[in-house]
Amino acid sequence: MPKISKKGEMMPASPIRKLVPFADAAVSRGVKVFYLNIGQPDIETPKGARDAVKNADIKVIAYSHSAGNLSYRKKLVEYYHKVGIELTTDEIIVTTGGSEGIQFAFNSCLDAGDEVIIPEPFYANYNGFAVTSGVVVKPIVSKIENGFALPPIEEFEKVITPKTKAIMICNPSNPTGYLYSKEELITLSKIVEKYDLFLFADEVYREFTYDGEEHFSVMEMKNIEQNTILLDSVSKRYSACGVRIGAFISKNKEVMATAMKFAQARLSPPTYGQILGEAAVDTPQEYFDEVIAEYVERRDAIVNAINDMPGCYCPNPKGAFYCVARLPIDNSDRFCQWLLEEFNHNGKTVMMAPATGFYSHPTQGTDEVRISYCLKVDDLKEAMVCLAEALKVYPGRK
Amino acid sequence: MPKISKKGEMMPASPIRKLVPFADAAVSRGVKVFYLNIGQPDIETPKGARDAVKNADIKVIAYSHSAGNLSYRKKLVEYYHKVGIELTTDEIIVTTGGSEGIQFAFNSCLDAGDEVIIPEPFYANYNGFAVTSGVVVKPIVSKIENGFALPPIEEFEKVITPKTKAIMICNPSNPTGYLYSKEELITLSKIVEKYDLFLFADEVYREFTYDGEEHFSVMEMKNIEQNTILLDSVSKRYSACGVRIGAFISKNKEVMATAMKFAQARLSPPTYGQILGEAAVDTPQEYFDEVIAEYVERRDAIVNAINDMPGCYCPNPKGAFYCVARLPIDNSDRFCQWLLEEFNHNGKTVMMAPATGFYSHPTQGTDEVRISYCLKVDDLKEAMVCLAEALKVYPGRK
Repeated sequence: MPKISKKGEMMPASPIRKLVPFADAAVSRGVKVFYLNIGQPDIETPKGARDAVKNADIKVIAYSHSAGNLSYRKKLVEYYHKVGIELTTDEIIVTTGGSEGIQFAFNSCLDAGDEVIIPEPFYANYNGFAVTSGVVVKPIVSKIENGFALPPIEEFEKVITPKTKAIMICNPSNPTGYLYSKEELITLSKIVEKYDLFLFADEVYREFTYDGEEHFSVMEMKNIEQNTILLDSVSKRYSACGVRIGAFISKNKEVMATAMKFAQARLSPPTYGQILGEAAVDTPQEYFDEVIAEYVERRDAIVNAINDMPGCYCPNPKGAFYCVARLPIDNSDRFCQWLLEEFNHNGKTVMMAPATGFYSHPTQGTDEVRISYCLKVDDLKEAMVCLAEALKVYPGRK
Repeated sequence: MPKISKKGEMMPASPIRKLVPFADAAVSRGVKVFYLNIGQPDIETPKGARDAVKNADIKVIAYSHSAGNLSYRKKLVEYYHKVGIELTTDEIIVTTGGSEGIQFAFNSCLDAGDEVIIPEPFYANYNGFAVTSGVVVKPIVSKIENGFALPPIEEFEKVITPKTKAIMICNPSNPTGYLYSKEELITLSKIVEKYDLFLFADEVYREFTYDGEEHFSVMEMKNIEQNTILLDSVSKRYSACGVRIGAFISKNKEVMATAMKFAQARLSPPTYGQILGEAAVDTPQEYFDEVIAEYVERRDAIVNAINDMPGCYCPNPKGAFYCVARLPIDNSDRFCQWLLEEFNHNGKTVMMAPATGFYSHPTQGTDEVRISYCLKVDDLKEAMVCLAEALKVYPGRK
């Protein structure tokens, strides 16, 4: 029997999905599980966008342009204009989810052995894509005590080597919900400029900012226009994760021409998803106003509940729909598995993502969990009761 | 301005799409272009499959299982049973097009620097995915004089090194239309067994076999069950290229577990495409009977016309909807571009794919073109008149 690749061995399992078999087992024992592990919103996909797919009258579901349908890219130009980003259709490649955009960025800009600096905790799949393309992640720690703010500039400079080719951020952040300030981003742009690095910015949660805070995009920093790649997705914006539509955006023509070669190799992004995405741009502002009000209520339910539990701490995130909480536990992998395998409170339990998977070394995040607040407030409140009860009896409590 | 990666520089441009700007220019000069360059069938996607998407009543377009919806995988088990392949749902990962399956295969089984043997000419994007994952393609030449049959076993053994990890075939073949016989595949299985290699088999054209020939799948060879990965796609089968749905299939549990890690990193395949794919399995046999009769007529129109042109030769392919023809020309890239830039016959011309892009070295295939017979017979006949006239006046005629 031939051997799998070393790359395949090194590939990390998804921290969000690896406990699924334990959750399935709990469900089959009759336990109700609150799924706080995954960023799958329960919000409806806008009806207008869904109807566009229903009403599409296409006889041959053909390949689209490798960069995505021109009509969709034109519509995206409109969307970005509305959020203060001026683009042309040539500066956009429609991707198969945000995931593919990350792969295009790594493959177009970095070779095997090259380094990308990422503040951690970070979106777990960055690790997976780094392993896939042989890229080395150099993490710098953002601390829970500071609410996961951007680490000081010296921390970046400490890890920069001749192999450093890029910095990657997620703003607002998955998994921390942290929203970078304009000042932080301008500081970051100086490092990017000084060392002539690429800046990959994952801004898929752009619309989800709270408490009156505004999102500042990396695309607004003209000084690093040629260095910047914006990675985007419709998944969270329109609660349409399953359509697998994202975007790879840059003003750097050489980068775009290179990414197009990778885009042509995989032929085209999904047709139906593009139809939904194109119609979704016309989603009225009220949809977002309602959704954001709902998320604020959910966030408050989670953050307040956790901060009321003895020995627990959760910063108050200003964006996205995640938070990372510190709990008085020995090991977050063990705790999250225990919750599914051995615990229930009145027949209910909670599934969360151990934060270990959001750091580059498994020794970190052992007393932290990521909580996604994608469920209805009442469910979240019940879930928090379960968590509080669980912490009282967990054998590995510290 | 930071530099793109060496990988990005090495990435080949698509031989199918690189002449598109010249075709666009011809069209804008008022010339009618017959597109024989791309395998985009003009056949309608089965109505039942399209209706499944129209009638799907989903309020939240959510991520699916990373391996694809269980209901779809169950349906695929049915489909494969019908074509003589016995599978369980755990032996199938639904992919985003056949393209993603190739990437999962390369990444799960080969490391950078490892070698895969591929009979050439081969599907151009294999090259692109090899560059993406740092895999080295070791080509062995299948010859037009032999109708592009499998090269003799000694040719394989000549290029096997300690770095050889896999053999890859496409059956029936894109670009040659060659259909491997059962005997050829059994011969191949002996090499796979002897050197304990992986065998990647792209069988996306399985249904398209002509003249009473039957397709023999690599999955039927029990002696190499643990070595074999079947790569599949609904794109051509149901003329649904734009849904981006394929499959990665193996009986090797370690390979499946490894591919699942790559599948989880990209979250899920497209939801709408899976709905279409699931319904498409119920497409009645008459659909294929009609489609196949149509393709045979088209193939005959092309092959007969070319073999009637002085100095031209085209083997008669038994499968898929491509052929590779030898023409009396100096350089196929130059000829194909000239057809679009400088030639027209009564205001019409032909776009074909230079075969150079289907070989691993650009010095090969310089007097060959790939022709895709995805257009209606009348258009194909007109296109062949254009080609015959063009060859009479082409300045680089040999």
